[in-house]
Amino acid sequence: MRPYEKDPAAIYAASFATVRSEAPLTRFPSDIAEVAIRVIHACGMVEIADRLDYSDDVASSAIAALRAGAPVYADCEMVASGITRRLLPGTDVRCTLNDADVPDMAKSLGTTRSAAAVDLWDTDGAIIAIGNAPTALFRLLERLEDGAPKPAGILGFPVGFVGAAESKAELAQRPRDTPFLTLRGRKGGSAMASAAVNALGILAAGGLQ
Amino acid sequence: MRPYEKDPAAIYAASFATVRSEAPLTRFPSDIAEVAIRVIHACGMVEIADRLDYSDDVASSAIAALRAGAPVYADCEMVASGITRRLLPGTDVRCTLNDADVPDMAKSLGTTRSAAAVDLWDTDGAIIAIGNAPTALFRLLERLEDGAPKPAGILGFPVGFVGAAESKAELAQRPRDTPFLTLRGRKGGSAMASAAVNALGILAAGGLQ
Repeated sequence: MRPYEKDPAAIYAASFATVRSEAPLTRFPSDIAEVAIRVIHACGMVEIADRLDYSDDVASSAIAALRAGAPVYADCEMVASGITRRLLPGTDVRCTLNDADVPDMAKSLGTTRSAAAVDLWDTDGAIIAIGNAPTALFRLLERLEDGAPKPAGILGFPVGFVGAAESKAELAQRPRDTPFLTLRGRKGGSAMASAAVNALGILAAGGLQ
Repeated sequence: MRPYEKDPAAIYAASFATVRSEAPLTRFPSDIAEVAIRVIHACGMVEIADRLDYSDDVASSAIAALRAGAPVYADCEMVASGITRRLLPGTDVRCTLNDADVPDMAKSLGTTRSAAAVDLWDTDGAIIAIGNAPTALFRLLERLEDGAPKPAGILGFPVGFVGAAESKAELAQRPRDTPFLTLRGRKGGSAMASAAVNALGILAAGGLQ
């Protein structure tokens, strides 16, 4: 058996030191760099730094919202599970995907359950964390176009082969005047979305900076 | 707003058609190819196909175990959340990470909570799904070396910058006579681990093949 590092503090420090030394982070404002670092840490891929798109105000807007008690909406249970409640002690993390009405809503709207679940979100000033379904991000953008109240930030990390790249391109190109952070292309996932929320929670609590 | 596909069946079909057409799958036995396809689907990266290591018996062993009622142990709640219970109706999915004893066990053992939680697993004939912590995989391999009963299969997808590549290399090079599937390198994650479990559940129910 090869030796391995068992000390949680040493693992944590070495992990983040590696991300900081290897990832191309210089283009980011300092608050967004901290979010990028935790997203990279969650997926093991320093190369995604070059494919993050964002609005300059996304971290400051989301941090202010968290401090004011805004909820986080997650598009799936994995994203909600990945949010470390200890880092966001006052924050209500909501996932409506498994609400009882959602299957019928999806059928009557002719869409996915993930998209129908978005219609149950109170977007006003909320943090939105999408780590799975492209249709959830598309539906959110439709709702904003139709006049739904503006979220404080959209963390857009849907993943996969149908609609993920397209929904994130739509977000980056036409963010509907909403602060956002997203990863171009097919890559994404719940770990990245929840890592972004966790980073914002740490920043909101006054950590890291 | 650009048009997008809303039909769940069409999204599902197009996603898997893309994976099958783009991913290098020819080297895999047919049952392992089905698992690889769902792992790729979960992360949006066809290129990982070339970095999957496995024992030829991993799918058949895990499928037989699931049919016989074996439990699944997950190293974190995100992996457990990602396992679709509908696909594994008779399967007990267990995560011991947040058990009350774990923090004290970790302190007294001088290791991480993720590794300490592994000591609470009944490995005998179980399916092990690791999607987060390298120390969980290292600790499992230590326990097997110390004579713990053999699992039916290890799905090894720890992620990150400290120990992930090393723990997976240890698994692939010295699997302790246990069937395994793993992804070389830093990449991994809970979505991949739970996707592998879901694929095995579908195969165990007689689907796909």
